[in-house]
Amino acid sequence: MAQISLSRRLRRTPFSEGVEAAGVRAYTVYNHMLLPTVFRSVEEDYRHLKEAVQVWDVACERQVELRGPDAGRLMQMLTPRDLRGMLPGQCYYVPIVDATGGMLNDPVAVKLAEDRWWISIADSDLLYWVGGVAQGWRLDVLIDEPDVSPLAVQGPRADELMARVFGESVRDIRFFRFAPLEFEGRPLVVARSGYSKQGGFEIYVEGADIAMPLWHALMEAGRDLDVHAGGPNLIERIESGLLSYGNDMTDDNTPHECGLGRFCNTQSAVGCIGRDALLRVAKEGPVQQIRAIAIDGPPVPVCDRFWPLLAGGTEVGRISSAAWSPDFDTNVAIGMVRMTHWDAGTELEVKTPEGPRRALVQPAFWN
Amino acid sequence: MAQISLSRRLRRTPFSEGVEAAGVRAYTVYNHMLLPTVFRSVEEDYRHLKEAVQVWDVACERQVELRGPDAGRLMQMLTPRDLRGMLPGQCYYVPIVDATGGMLNDPVAVKLAEDRWWISIADSDLLYWVGGVAQGWRLDVLIDEPDVSPLAVQGPRADELMARVFGESVRDIRFFRFAPLEFEGRPLVVARSGYSKQGGFEIYVEGADIAMPLWHALMEAGRDLDVHAGGPNLIERIESGLLSYGNDMTDDNTPHECGLGRFCNTQSAVGCIGRDALLRVAKEGPVQQIRAIAIDGPPVPVCDRFWPLLAGGTEVGRISSAAWSPDFDTNVAIGMVRMTHWDAGTELEVKTPEGPRRALVQPAFWN
Repeated sequence: MAQISLSRRLRRTPFSEGVEAAGVRAYTVYNHMLLPTVFRSVEEDYRHLKEAVQVWDVACERQVELRGPDAGRLMQMLTPRDLRGMLPGQCYYVPIVDATGGMLNDPVAVKLAEDRWWISIADSDLLYWVGGVAQGWRLDVLIDEPDVSPLAVQGPRADELMARVFGESVRDIRFFRFAPLEFEGRPLVVARSGYSKQGGFEIYVEGADIAMPLWHALMEAGRDLDVHAGGPNLIERIESGLLSYGNDMTDDNTPHECGLGRFCNTQSAVGCIGRDALLRVAKEGPVQQIRAIAIDGPPVPVCDRFWPLLAGGTEVGRISSAAWSPDFDTNVAIGMVRMTHWDAGTELEVKTPEGPRRALVQPAFWN
Repeated sequence: MAQISLSRRLRRTPFSEGVEAAGVRAYTVYNHMLLPTVFRSVEEDYRHLKEAVQVWDVACERQVELRGPDAGRLMQMLTPRDLRGMLPGQCYYVPIVDATGGMLNDPVAVKLAEDRWWISIADSDLLYWVGGVAQGWRLDVLIDEPDVSPLAVQGPRADELMARVFGESVRDIRFFRFAPLEFEGRPLVVARSGYSKQGGFEIYVEGADIAMPLWHALMEAGRDLDVHAGGPNLIERIESGLLSYGNDMTDDNTPHECGLGRFCNTQSAVGCIGRDALLRVAKEGPVQQIRAIAIDGPPVPVCDRFWPLLAGGTEVGRISSAAWSPDFDTNVAIGMVRMTHWDAGTELEVKTPEGPRRALVQPAFWN
């Protein structure tokens, strides 16, 4: 495997010192920032995530902040999800699309106040799209990347660990809600969310100076809980059907193809960019869609490119993410499949770099 | 050093097969794509680049294509450089700024025709900015990332190698001009340009199918020229004063701070975004600017974060790129320095992770 060439352009995070001390073995790059991916091994990190609790440096989930009188209007222009009922204190998963309905990002919108929002972004420079749109429409809004670095606490013991550091009230936070909690006298937004299905929180650490004190406090408080540094885990996220922008979908895809049609209220989201295109898609339905796919045989190699899915020698889809799952004793995968072959139980052939394998469309993801 | 976790999100290129066969040792990520950085070692690759000829997979220099009646108008909105005298067949280095004059990218614009442009981008999703602006202004223009992957041929023997593959006419291409030349019956745009000061070309390979045949043809034709796979070289680019977006400048900086004021015709570039802010900057001049800096002592470690520059204990700037230069027998570096301390010959102290060193502001870059 090749090494990563470090440079200032691949930004370190306020938690990098802790990540290094914990023995990080591999990184990916996400929003021009280092994202730790492996500490012990992908399999060991997976097992530990499902049984204990991990602290994740996900500072790379950068925020795009919208502030000002037109912030709410702009936010609704950006997404086909109807935001009218959204209250301050809520987080919404919001597909962002261009004029043709192609996905530009699949972030979480955090409504801090009527005139102040954070968009917690996946891996694309959404700041540029939001800035360009606001410029073109001459909106009265300030757009910025604030000094906010999310830290995730994930795993079955996350509630216990967080309660020790932030107090018992953290347990009352409902899914996709947030509360301002205090750490060393500093109010920090804490949300019940995260990129795993093992439960947990994301702390929006505002101000780099408080980052390492918080990291150390969590590590200290969680010693008897077997807390360890971790990161989004390839196996767990595929089992759980957590899509990854850039891997499983790009601006080639509509939200409907990605199974995100339920987040598109295209009829009522008046003023959103891409509305006409998505009304058409909603009417006709997508011709291909994301599916959970099991791949037979021994562990597959790293999926670093599309693997074609064939039926009778004809390409009917492609795999974008795959990994061996110890818990489900099969290779779990995410793929885009044409409607002619997307029914659960359909048998396909996948062309991996190590040769063809049998693949089976699943009724649902594993977790 | 940590490894890089491969995934589909870090896109392979049409040349990846050749890069792997050539024994790539390290990558960086650039525009969500793999950019090979080291083959033998940074020092060996440096020496070879200066003496022979290298083929670089710079497919990560993605293109943003503008096509349609408003393409020229949009292009001028994007940059403070006056494009009125630019002819089809020319390449211009064009700073792109936001409304406050902050740099969003520093690409090369390639004018294919009055209504068709490529913007060959540095590491940020400029497609999103261009798309947002065009959407907001409702311009009649199509914006796209075409299937174009640049391949660079760099080094003192580049003319000879290129003439063997594309014919003698390649020698007539002037600096920052391009010509459509043929390879296996396919017309490809070939420009005299590239991210080194060793001379050479960039081939805009249109269509992934022709990529590996071209790679092999260059390797085959250059055997007796000692052709080798390479990539942008850290040492050579610092010696040559080639700035790197994300390393040496970001959206925090104006073009004037980066020494790019000569590419800003803010008086005459009517309609460009950021004009008001840049008129102000042009009038007052920047308060800090990029400088070549020599750092005393043995080879510095990898510069993966800002290193503060101090004068009498006060911060007056910061280093963003640094490397040991065998040819100049010193550490060469790029830094942003406040006007009070930017004169050539000014002695400063730089805080490296391995302790303080003496630093000296240079009158110019080395190459």
